[in-house]
Amino acid sequence: MKNFIFENPTKIIFGRGQISQAGKEVARFGRKVLLVYGLESIKKNGIYDQVISSLQEAGLKIVEFPGVKSNPMLAHALKGIALARETQVDVVMAVGGGSVIDTAKTIAAGVQADHDVWDFFTYKKPVLGALPVLTVLTLAASASEMNPAAVMTREEGMQKFSFRSPHIQPRVSILDPTALFSLSAAYSAYSAVDAISHLLESYFNNEETDSPFQDRLAEGLIRTIMESTEIILQEPANYNARANMMWATTWAFNGLPAAGLGRVTLPVHMIEHSISAIYDIAHGAGLALVLPGWMRYTFEKNVRKLAWLAREIFRSEGSDENAAAEGIGKMKDWFASIGCSTSLTDAGIPENDIDKIAENAFVLAQTWQLPDYTRDVIAEVLRHCR
Amino acid sequence: MKNFIFENPTKIIFGRGQISQAGKEVARFGRKVLLVYGLESIKKNGIYDQVISSLQEAGLKIVEFPGVKSNPMLAHALKGIALARETQVDVVMAVGGGSVIDTAKTIAAGVQADHDVWDFFTYKKPVLGALPVLTVLTLAASASEMNPAAVMTREEGMQKFSFRSPHIQPRVSILDPTALFSLSAAYSAYSAVDAISHLLESYFNNEETDSPFQDRLAEGLIRTIMESTEIILQEPANYNARANMMWATTWAFNGLPAAGLGRVTLPVHMIEHSISAIYDIAHGAGLALVLPGWMRYTFEKNVRKLAWLAREIFRSEGSDENAAAEGIGKMKDWFASIGCSTSLTDAGIPENDIDKIAENAFVLAQTWQLPDYTRDVIAEVLRHCR
Repeated sequence: MKNFIFENPTKIIFGRGQISQAGKEVARFGRKVLLVYGLESIKKNGIYDQVISSLQEAGLKIVEFPGVKSNPMLAHALKGIALARETQVDVVMAVGGGSVIDTAKTIAAGVQADHDVWDFFTYKKPVLGALPVLTVLTLAASASEMNPAAVMTREEGMQKFSFRSPHIQPRVSILDPTALFSLSAAYSAYSAVDAISHLLESYFNNEETDSPFQDRLAEGLIRTIMESTEIILQEPANYNARANMMWATTWAFNGLPAAGLGRVTLPVHMIEHSISAIYDIAHGAGLALVLPGWMRYTFEKNVRKLAWLAREIFRSEGSDENAAAEGIGKMKDWFASIGCSTSLTDAGIPENDIDKIAENAFVLAQTWQLPDYTRDVIAEVLRHCR
Repeated sequence: MKNFIFENPTKIIFGRGQISQAGKEVARFGRKVLLVYGLESIKKNGIYDQVISSLQEAGLKIVEFPGVKSNPMLAHALKGIALARETQVDVVMAVGGGSVIDTAKTIAAGVQADHDVWDFFTYKKPVLGALPVLTVLTLAASASEMNPAAVMTREEGMQKFSFRSPHIQPRVSILDPTALFSLSAAYSAYSAVDAISHLLESYFNNEETDSPFQDRLAEGLIRTIMESTEIILQEPANYNARANMMWATTWAFNGLPAAGLGRVTLPVHMIEHSISAIYDIAHGAGLALVLPGWMRYTFEKNVRKLAWLAREIFRSEGSDENAAAEGIGKMKDWFASIGCSTSLTDAGIPENDIDKIAENAFVLAQTWQLPDYTRDVIAEVLRHCR
């Protein structure tokens, strides 16, 4: 295990009926709140009304900033920053999933920046401060509700980049599993793929003898996510399955699975960011196209760990080679079984586009300092995803 | 899953060489530090010198309060409170294991209390504030380095009680696995038993279908603890095994495994507290006497979950009854294999003492509000431990 610092101060308020705590919690940090949310879904499922009435009961002034879309765009966040400055809000509450939370985080940090906000994403400027961010989670996948990261796409060059800072770590996140009851089967599946990808990209960072703590944690979370998702697709309003899924996705990417592994790179996320930036495909859907192919690409290097994973998750037997191959196949089959496309062809992305995707991803590989991922390597990974 | 709040703001600084951070971290909270530690072990293994030089480099004033013994006594903590008041320290640093940290927590809260400190332990008075507590961990088992609890024994009536408050949650804990290299085989084994007992007492709180997240987490941590302990007993200075063990014991009792399980009771700890209060046996050694017998006592109620555990940890097969029985036997055998006594008889505690232990534990059962644990029930559990 490598040296690390673990600090995750987000207060999680978990359970049925807990959205009613929103006003009281926001009031600990300010009096005028920017309410960031997406489109119509939270108005349809009643979450919007619950949040508004809780904020009003606490006597808070509310400035609404709706309209966040999935794969959120920098231009939209810039409007939010302008609105936050103009209205002088002192706290930001996100009601949504990763896209909404990441927009809220970008606004919270951007309000206090006297430079181009994109400089955070290109690591040119550090975050020196931010308005307090709180969240009400309505789509569990990104773990943004309990981590210090934000992902955003800039229209110019369709670049999907990210930044991290303790200043944007949510102070409080409210996780009410009933908020997920109306989530579609497709997005429920994408959430599972996203969380599994977070876990596996850490998992393959180390040999299996180096990190039993992190490995057993990841295997346990993956099993929880798979079992819960299978129930959710049959019974979208199964409280316990939604609750276990919600909590597992949070822990899949809140810093614990990666702590002690040294530098954890996210090559699958890197390549997917280019796919969803170019095609406006959902992030989890994009990951399902890349993850199995990337696992095959790493077969030789990771064969022992792939075999270990297959034995733990799928109870595979036999030699490392056989177990590893079976594990990749079964993971891909499982993604298909929950309704995901699992290859570029399936998703209607032509083989001829591989160089274009690789070119886009290569820019990110340089920003993220992944020198192993040259244009050629990225294209090779993508050919495994055909 | 039940509603819960999870908030664990302790900053963990983990790894080789990190004790050098002690001074810088303490200086964030004060200028004059009460240094709480035990007997000679930290002077022998060099930890004391590392801490002192780091505190001195940061320009801190140091007031030393040594002499904490295992199963720490209230009378000693009261001396620490008097010293802290007299010297007007503004921060408390514990260098040790659970006994030292819990003494430091009791002092930190006691300094600011204008009433009998034991009132915290009997739940008669809430903790309204405390000096900041930081820790350097030298024995990993209690998870006190990352939780808001403290356990203490009062000489009068030999009562071993505990209290909890966010005010005594350590602000920073430094976990350097090399600090464990000189820990004896016996205490290394007791640590494993303590952490496994923490996990299993939560584990048997719920049916196996209610809490897959918590169950997979507990199973993964137990496997990590068992595998790491086996290596440690062969190679006491195996860094990676010590590191995985240290980190796993912290997560075994820092609130995460129990979050969402509703009210988690600790009947094995309750009964053991009476044993170690009466016989001055090490806490983990006492748990090894009680845990297998308690599992047998709960056989009928927990048979499905016992079987599940046995299948996950020991790869048991067959009917629930067979797997459950095998699991209890194998857990007991494993405790014996790491050098623990696993019955009262083994430990030289005569059967005739059962009523005396039950009487002592019954006082605690009332304080902890465990109405199921009458004198008779406790005696019955203890008869399973003969």
